Amino acid sequence: MRKLAIGIDLGGTNIKGGVLDRAGRLLRRDSIETEGERGREHVIGRVVGLIESLAAASGTPRTDFAGVGLGAPGPMSHKAGVIHAAPNLPGWSSVPIRDILAQRTGLKVTLENDANAAAFGEFTAGAGRGVGRMFMMTLGTGVGGGLVIDGRLERGHFDNAGEIGHMILFPNGRPCPCGQRGCFERYASANAVSERFVEALRAGEPSSLTLTAPPPQAPEVLAAAEAGDGLAARVWRETVEALALGCVNVQHLLNPELIVLAGGLIAAGDALLRPLREAFSRATWRIAPDQPRIEPATLGGDAGVIGAAALAFE
Amino acid sequence: MRKLAIGIDLGGTNIKGGVLDRAGRLLRRDSIETEGERGREHVIGRVVGLIESLAAASGTPRTDFAGVGLGAPGPMSHKAGVIHAAPNLPGWSSVPIRDILAQRTGLKVTLENDANAAAFGEFTAGAGRGVGRMFMMTLGTGVGGGLVIDGRLERGHFDNAGEIGHMILFPNGRPCPCGQRGCFERYASANAVSERFVEALRAGEPSSLTLTAPPPQAPEVLAAAEAGDGLAARVWRETVEALALGCVNVQHLLNPELIVLAGGLIAAGDALLRPLREAFSRATWRIAPDQPRIEPATLGGDAGVIGAAALAFE
Repeated sequence: MRKLAIGIDLGGTNIKGGVLDRAGRLLRRDSIETEGERGREHVIGRVVGLIESLAAASGTPRTDFAGVGLGAPGPMSHKAGVIHAAPNLPGWSSVPIRDILAQRTGLKVTLENDANAAAFGEFTAGAGRGVGRMFMMTLGTGVGGGLVIDGRLERGHFDNAGEIGHMILFPNGRPCPCGQRGCFERYASANAVSERFVEALRAGEPSSLTLTAPPPQAPEVLAAAEAGDGLAARVWRETVEALALGCVNVQHLLNPELIVLAGGLIAAGDALLRPLREAFSRATWRIAPDQPRIEPATLGGDAGVIGAAALAFE
Repeated sequence: MRKLAIGIDLGGTNIKGGVLDRAGRLLRRDSIETEGERGREHVIGRVVGLIESLAAASGTPRTDFAGVGLGAPGPMSHKAGVIHAAPNLPGWSSVPIRDILAQRTGLKVTLENDANAAAFGEFTAGAGRGVGRMFMMTLGTGVGGGLVIDGRLERGHFDNAGEIGHMILFPNGRPCPCGQRGCFERYASANAVSERFVEALRAGEPSSLTLTAPPPQAPEVLAAAEAGDGLAARVWRETVEALALGCVNVQHLLNPELIVLAGGLIAAGDALLRPLREAFSRATWRIAPDQPRIEPATLGGDAGVIGAAALAFE
């Protein structure tokens, strides 16, 4: 049995990589700049170089590697191994990255959505270890999601399962660049905190914060809320309440044992978790004791690398 | 390999039963009245009698039966084989029905939620045949749901997956007996059509229909809408639009190939399906071609029996 796998997390700013064993231990990690502005071929070369350096540094023969898992952003097809588009990587359109990397490294390659990879990482070695059914929400620029059922990553028929950020939570609500209205991520992402706060400021609502450039971000809104700013407190409370409703919907549709929260917004810690758990308890039904636990992710920036590598073992 | 299974669909009015082969063919069916008012022991006796008569009439030795699947309403535990409560069956509280029936029939028994059983029936022999991932919504008194992933019924950690009727679609919306507000089934069930129409009548909105006893039901509201009644048309349109948003949320969270609609409301046929597909197309995102097909169930009242029997083969 091949005992190691390499995980790569391809982001717009950095390419992170690591070597995982079958026990879910990250034996080695590395991170390099993406240098995406230098074009697709350059970035592919950097990914290949990182894979080679991780494999070489592990001091283990190539035949000991089950393969490489690549987590990447943007619309993609896991089945076809193709990145359709990558908004933060210029020139990446319809790239058959799985086969390109396999050909250049001689290793089996698995392509995965980065939110799915991170969810599978938390399942493998983080907050979801030992849990059969978990849902992870990543609260960052948008809201991503990943779904593990019975110990397996569930991708859906079209490889897009878990896209909770575009669940419609407020019919006829805020417009979303995806073309819908009222998407969950327009209310529950880190960016949505900033956007909604700025809108209210522009509409003339009083606050201790002013409209700076760049505008106040989620951590500043939270700090203002904790310092007694009424507008900031309202925006934070509405964010938490939207998140709670999202958790209720995950509860009823998927009925997991655990919801894991990840992404920039969880830096808020108990200022997010405590009111969220309270709001969830108030919002959910009373007729069955099937409420999932809500816990923060524990792997931080390693989740994507660990999950991508773990998927390469599958 | 045991080649036959018995499916039982225990309802408040009737107990339906049938014999299924492994090809998903319903070889024999029967239906008797539940006589629930005569108490739990009486009903259990009738279920046992129906199982025995189906087994005897099949002319096949008992050893040819893989077992019995029982679909039943109300909160229950598949894992424990216990019906916690059955609102339409007096005296049914914490009944270990799986073990009772197994002991009295000598057959292996599987207990399943009736919405799940019907979904698995449509997957086995109806609209979802050959589909790997489908979601079924049953639009009746409430809205039930069942979820098939990779050919298996997905029950969730707490046996409550697919409870889409209690997905919150309108935050702070209509109160639901479950304790939540804005539940999907308060907008998209057959009963919700009638309830919302009656509320508008009571509020004095003009209509060609009047407040009868019993009040106008979904078919009458639809008929009035088709005859040009403005209020009825609005209530029907809002129902269809809520359904479309529910389909969008299923698309993004579960990403199935197919959404199957069942239950009383689908008697409307194209008056439901055509505007629903249009509303779904308008409401869903533009950024990925991952829209599921939306199709009506094809098994009618047999879905529960077929699905329960098919689950007994599992």
